[in-house]
Amino acid sequence: MTTTGEDDESTQTDYEIAQSVETDPIVDVVEPFGLSEDDLELMGEEKAKVTLEAIERIKREKDDDGKLVLVTGMTPTPLGEGKTVTTVGLGQAFNQIGKDALVAVREPSLGPVFGVKGGAAGGGYSQVLPMEDINLHFTGDLHALTSAHNLIATMLDNHIKQGNELNISVNQVNWPRAIDMNDRALRETVVGLGGDVTGVPREDGFILTAASELMAVLCLADSIEDLKARIGRIIVAYDEDGDPITVDDIGATGAASILLKDALKPNVVQTIEGTPAFVHGGPFANIAHGTNSLIADDVASHLSEYLVTEAGFGSDLGAEKFMNIVCRFGDMEPDAVTLVASVRALKYHGQEMWPPDLDELEAEDVDAVERGLENLDKHVTNLQKFGVPVVVALNRFPGDTDAEVDAVLDHCRDELGIRAAESTVFGEGGEGGIELAENLVDAAESESEYEPLYDIDAPIKEKIETVATEIYGADGVNFSSDAEDDMERLTDHGFDDVPICMSKTFHSLSDDASKKGVPEDWTLDVNEIYPSAGAGFLVVLTADVLTLPGLPGEPAAAGMDLDSDGNVSGLF
Amino acid sequence: MTTTGEDDESTQTDYEIAQSVETDPIVDVVEPFGLSEDDLELMGEEKAKVTLEAIERIKREKDDDGKLVLVTGMTPTPLGEGKTVTTVGLGQAFNQIGKDALVAVREPSLGPVFGVKGGAAGGGYSQVLPMEDINLHFTGDLHALTSAHNLIATMLDNHIKQGNELNISVNQVNWPRAIDMNDRALRETVVGLGGDVTGVPREDGFILTAASELMAVLCLADSIEDLKARIGRIIVAYDEDGDPITVDDIGATGAASILLKDALKPNVVQTIEGTPAFVHGGPFANIAHGTNSLIADDVASHLSEYLVTEAGFGSDLGAEKFMNIVCRFGDMEPDAVTLVASVRALKYHGQEMWPPDLDELEAEDVDAVERGLENLDKHVTNLQKFGVPVVVALNRFPGDTDAEVDAVLDHCRDELGIRAAESTVFGEGGEGGIELAENLVDAAESESEYEPLYDIDAPIKEKIETVATEIYGADGVNFSSDAEDDMERLTDHGFDDVPICMSKTFHSLSDDASKKGVPEDWTLDVNEIYPSAGAGFLVVLTADVLTLPGLPGEPAAAGMDLDSDGNVSGLF
Repeated sequence: MTTTGEDDESTQTDYEIAQSVETDPIVDVVEPFGLSEDDLELMGEEKAKVTLEAIERIKREKDDDGKLVLVTGMTPTPLGEGKTVTTVGLGQAFNQIGKDALVAVREPSLGPVFGVKGGAAGGGYSQVLPMEDINLHFTGDLHALTSAHNLIATMLDNHIKQGNELNISVNQVNWPRAIDMNDRALRETVVGLGGDVTGVPREDGFILTAASELMAVLCLADSIEDLKARIGRIIVAYDEDGDPITVDDIGATGAASILLKDALKPNVVQTIEGTPAFVHGGPFANIAHGTNSLIADDVASHLSEYLVTEAGFGSDLGAEKFMNIVCRFGDMEPDAVTLVASVRALKYHGQEMWPPDLDELEAEDVDAVERGLENLDKHVTNLQKFGVPVVVALNRFPGDTDAEVDAVLDHCRDELGIRAAESTVFGEGGEGGIELAENLVDAAESESEYEPLYDIDAPIKEKIETVATEIYGADGVNFSSDAEDDMERLTDHGFDDVPICMSKTFHSLSDDASKKGVPEDWTLDVNEIYPSAGAGFLVVLTADVLTLPGLPGEPAAAGMDLDSDGNVSGLF
Repeated sequence: MTTTGEDDESTQTDYEIAQSVETDPIVDVVEPFGLSEDDLELMGEEKAKVTLEAIERIKREKDDDGKLVLVTGMTPTPLGEGKTVTTVGLGQAFNQIGKDALVAVREPSLGPVFGVKGGAAGGGYSQVLPMEDINLHFTGDLHALTSAHNLIATMLDNHIKQGNELNISVNQVNWPRAIDMNDRALRETVVGLGGDVTGVPREDGFILTAASELMAVLCLADSIEDLKARIGRIIVAYDEDGDPITVDDIGATGAASILLKDALKPNVVQTIEGTPAFVHGGPFANIAHGTNSLIADDVASHLSEYLVTEAGFGSDLGAEKFMNIVCRFGDMEPDAVTLVASVRALKYHGQEMWPPDLDELEAEDVDAVERGLENLDKHVTNLQKFGVPVVVALNRFPGDTDAEVDAVLDHCRDELGIRAAESTVFGEGGEGGIELAENLVDAAESESEYEPLYDIDAPIKEKIETVATEIYGADGVNFSSDAEDDMERLTDHGFDDVPICMSKTFHSLSDDASKKGVPEDWTLDVNEIYPSAGAGFLVVLTADVLTLPGLPGEPAAAGMDLDSDGNVSGLF
């Protein structure tokens, strides 16, 4: 959720850089890629949604012969190592070397914007515009999701209040309410107070909209029909006999679909250098799959030679899910992967720092960088298991020394025998990513033999063990008795032949946030497994997941302002 | 919130009628009225926001010489008697008789759309388009308000959690959370559960977004500066010493303003006959003033010969507030008032029906109509106290007989000596409102001597007594001891020289919903008086107000669907 690579010395904010650029009408930006004005629903001059009719036509008329480049990262510091910046900059760099390229990134969520200072629209000279819109209400997709989510919750409680014909157990409602705000106080609540008039008191809670299964559904649906079918089968509660109650059962599928009919259409904007960028959807990368919408990837891959898309957190989470879930569902094959690394993150691993104190990582420390390389290496090895060539992108920050940078690049090239390049796209735009882009062209032209890591028909336990040992480096998995029961029940119900979606801390390759580098001699604890029936995967919980963050002591919101001409400040 | 006047025999829904019409681009619709494409922020072809720069320019360049026609109603049945339909139809009728006219109505709220079947975009051949957008997310104003409201709530609870430097009393927080959904279970809640990590447990609740003071603020602000000032002074809580805590105090003014910067710009769409319609803002008509935004009225009144605008509920609520609050704040003077009546509502009063059973009102009953006229008469007399000519609009439903209709029109013309006309704009569009429009032209050309009912500097008690006796017909007012304390404290704090905003049931002229006609021999009970410091008025509570409705046993949402081409059904 943060823009990284920024120059601390610089006095220009991302917003000021964005304001200094003259954008072209979005109609003109996308026209060379085969989208006409009739294919767009314009929201002002700079933003548009692509109609579903256009998407159908494009998929019918055009071959999907574009190359797919996935951007992922090593185990990051809490500020992130610049995946979005790299994604945006790389798209620009491809265009600079004469390759048609499009970018696809996730849609920001309001909650984090007001909490920790930073948006999710890239930064510096590699950002998507208009960044203030994209970071605020944008085209309303998040608001539509919040409304649809809460409509389902309202229909559910109303059903209980109006006689509870379905015999829903109030202690087995697992459809919380949603809000797109980091409102800690709503994490655990009691609702339905006030007596007979207001309904049945029960424990409840709110999650961030990005954590709603509806977000995952929206990001995996390929048509209105598919969207409706997925929404309808979402499990929102269990009845007193333990049987699932779905959105269909409570009669909310149609109304929720109506609320999402426009949100399903991918948004297109432009980068600061005029590269078209799809910014659509943004599911959590722990309880969900963490990538922008499949519908955006799908249409974008038909429109250009290269599509650069991004997956959340480190490659153990976002990329693993992209490869094992998204590519499988979307019938896509990545041609190359960019693994974003930073000197800061390498020192963080090399110093085995926990809790993080990033100010301590500013001084040159080549030894720490070299000690931290084991984390990078493990991510490289993991990604290679999917048969896809890996190019390391060292996102260079202004304070990084040549010695530190060379230590990384030399190691990748000489020890690992893989391609690597430094990237300075934050400060230089596409120009700063040309070497990286050239390496990716090389890699993508020839080598990919993508395959998912596990067989979809393997037993649930086997799939979890495969990810735990092959990706996380665990010795094995310890299933709680609840988890054993879950697997048995899910298998009995025939819900075992789907991918698994692991929910694990992103602070470490292991399930212990404090462990840096490549943790050894440990076993993964699995506590619970539940179906996201609408999304079509099983969520595997390895620890409590925080689905509604809170504001810090000094929230970014407190520093924001609007002048009388409508200009924002303090937003980034 | 309902479309009325519909023909039960008809098989065409409002949506089908809307779909059968070919709309012009909104750019072409508003161009003859002096708005160019540069003045608009387009949201697709049919919707736009008017920029604040354009509004400044128009107010600078053009005289405000347009006539203002207010649409209000008699004490309505729960389904409403067709004020929005009449407003839209009347605008169309003006244009049909060669008068330039614009329409301004309130923006629908999602909650009621999914609850009781019906939108708030007019109906039949007098509706605003695209009605499905307007009734769903429209241009996102309601979502922006929900977000801004909840940001303030989040900042408030975060302040308490992070040390509570302002010494806020958790039992004196009067800024609930907001949701645009009829979610009864959120009316009364406990938040902040879960121990030290999540904060301080306290009682809380949710209100419908339309009931947020932010909605009232947005509908009264005339610029970004004014918006910010109003937001900043909203009182969200009291400290342990009983002193007010404002949005400024908790540092949320800038961020909330940023979230509302686009919502402040009025939306313009078109009616089914191509009359430009401003659809902007929709505050409750009990705890707030119940009319669309002042900024929309203001710009619209500079753009055409006639502006037709609407106030909520019966004239005792919406029109009283329009005259005493909105016109005063906006320096506007209505030139004529249309009082919407229906045979159904007259029979409802004549039969002294409570609880309402509207099916029982279908048979002809001239006697009941005549007995019910006393309610209409009282509304006429009340409106005349403001010095504005009144024209009765009998919104004719298909089942109404000539005898019933004539009884009303003859009474108005012969007994009251005022203008009256039947209106059939639901079924016939502007054509069905020509006689009404001609009467209004007559009335508006000559007679208005508008003045508010009470002096702004009068003591609070006197202002309340004036409205209670002059408008409601009470013998007097009984103030609770709390209310007496409130008045004393507000007067001491210098917050007495503002208008009052009465919160009273809309089911009766009195404070007893069951009393029909013109209740006599009663005293108004006032329980509490509190400041809406951002809006700039005092809210006077005469009973508990329901600020978050619930869904009925068979919610409209359950009958809605979306087909695979994206067409909605069951929405209206």
